[in-house]
Amino acid sequence: MDQIMETVPNFSEGRNQETIELIAECFNGREDVKLLDYSADADHNRSVFTAVGEPGALCDAVIKAAGIALERIDLTQHRGQHPRMGCVDVIPFIPVRNCTLQDADAAAREVGKALGDRYGLPVFLYERSATLPNRENLSDIRKGEFEGMPKKMKDPEWKPDFGPDTVHPTGGVTAVGARMPLIAFNVNLGTDNLEIAKSIAKLVRHSSGGFRGIKAMGVMLRERNLAQVSMNVTDYTQTSLYRVLETIRMEAARYGVSVVGSEIVGLSPLKALMDCAEYYLQIEHFSMDLILENRL
Amino acid sequence: MDQIMETVPNFSEGRNQETIELIAECFNGREDVKLLDYSADADHNRSVFTAVGEPGALCDAVIKAAGIALERIDLTQHRGQHPRMGCVDVIPFIPVRNCTLQDADAAAREVGKALGDRYGLPVFLYERSATLPNRENLSDIRKGEFEGMPKKMKDPEWKPDFGPDTVHPTGGVTAVGARMPLIAFNVNLGTDNLEIAKSIAKLVRHSSGGFRGIKAMGVMLRERNLAQVSMNVTDYTQTSLYRVLETIRMEAARYGVSVVGSEIVGLSPLKALMDCAEYYLQIEHFSMDLILENRL
Repeated sequence: MDQIMETVPNFSEGRNQETIELIAECFNGREDVKLLDYSADADHNRSVFTAVGEPGALCDAVIKAAGIALERIDLTQHRGQHPRMGCVDVIPFIPVRNCTLQDADAAAREVGKALGDRYGLPVFLYERSATLPNRENLSDIRKGEFEGMPKKMKDPEWKPDFGPDTVHPTGGVTAVGARMPLIAFNVNLGTDNLEIAKSIAKLVRHSSGGFRGIKAMGVMLRERNLAQVSMNVTDYTQTSLYRVLETIRMEAARYGVSVVGSEIVGLSPLKALMDCAEYYLQIEHFSMDLILENRL
Repeated sequence: MDQIMETVPNFSEGRNQETIELIAECFNGREDVKLLDYSADADHNRSVFTAVGEPGALCDAVIKAAGIALERIDLTQHRGQHPRMGCVDVIPFIPVRNCTLQDADAAAREVGKALGDRYGLPVFLYERSATLPNRENLSDIRKGEFEGMPKKMKDPEWKPDFGPDTVHPTGGVTAVGARMPLIAFNVNLGTDNLEIAKSIAKLVRHSSGGFRGIKAMGVMLRERNLAQVSMNVTDYTQTSLYRVLETIRMEAARYGVSVVGSEIVGLSPLKALMDCAEYYLQIEHFSMDLILENRL
């Protein structure tokens, strides 16, 4: 079966409809690439595109779109609520089917190199493509934004991975990198006590000592009067849905509280759900090739 | 997304390679149809083809293949270990993606009518397409085989659903019908006591009072010295894998025995496994559209 990768590039244009349409056309008019969704926000002055496709074709589409952004977006004139540092601000690559994080990293490097070589845009590799620890978080790279970049990049620590060592005068700088698909997974508790959800969120989230890649907070579902552990699972191959769910169940039990339900907001990769079926059914020698539809 | 149906027609030819190849070509040379597998057995003098495709195209391919079988197979000369009643003996249609048992039934009726009208083959609808209770089981229809059919069909109870009321002189009769995909699901118990597996098999199988559509027996895994409840799940929409697994777990507990693993032999429809992920994760408002790959 063919490799499918996803990209969600963010462009610093949320007002000029012609520019937004020209960027969309880079993904629409191409075989082996499908634009799943795009939206523009005038207040943020920013647009986000979600496209999937064969990795090579997807890279070509992104490179072409970045060229249009560079031609038509002048960051010296850009104002908006969302922090930004480049005409094309950030380009994540996400493995979807028959490809790995390594393949996504290869795509990120191919695009980063092209942006540097062809367009003279400085490029920082971020997230799972980062070449230094302080380049993993996008917010660390973007700190100072477009206006602060000339000063920031004088520090050799902020030498870009591709392209020139200086900010592009109108296009700024771009972050490109591989990441895993993110799953928004919420677990509802049979209690109206928000403190219980907050305590459990603290136990499972990575930043306070919990599971790798889990972001979590306790929130109140006012309509149902239920407390919820609301999570982002940023790498289901490191922390699977069943493991975090069963840990929440175990911790809730000390309060005599049960899990009453869960929800997935948006999309989940098939494998993340199949890992759960495999675990709970105790299937030995499981393979995605057991799935009839995967043989079509 | 397009509808995908599966068919697994059985032909009464396992020796003449030219005939087998001509039948395979009916499925191979066609857009929107894919031959997944075929195998012939000389002792049984029978061949089985597994093909998937768009329902209309799949029906056309099957009808064409039946025409070749009728031309080239003479049941008056046929000898083999496997019971048989027709040159094309049985044609099941199985819903795979974006189609239902009703769609499979419609395909069965389309093919049945074509075999009757065009080729003069008497056709009995069987399994979920059966028009009378004693036509649900293929073995009831086939009883007497080719040689016994002339006498059997004199009884008005055995008037075919399509085609003439008399056996085709060289082609016999054919059974066509819709059925659900079958899942071979085995549960391994942490005991070497085969009687425990046999007792539990008896409790869960439909024929002795258990779950709808479950066929089960206790077997010994000699290599691992484990007893196994070996099952066919003939309709996962009636009895899901998790329900039968948890029932086996519950019954095994009375002997102090635990479930040590399970296996799926062959293929499972995606939905059968997703039903398990949905149940165990307690996902509210689950939909197959939550799966990223289903959006491609």
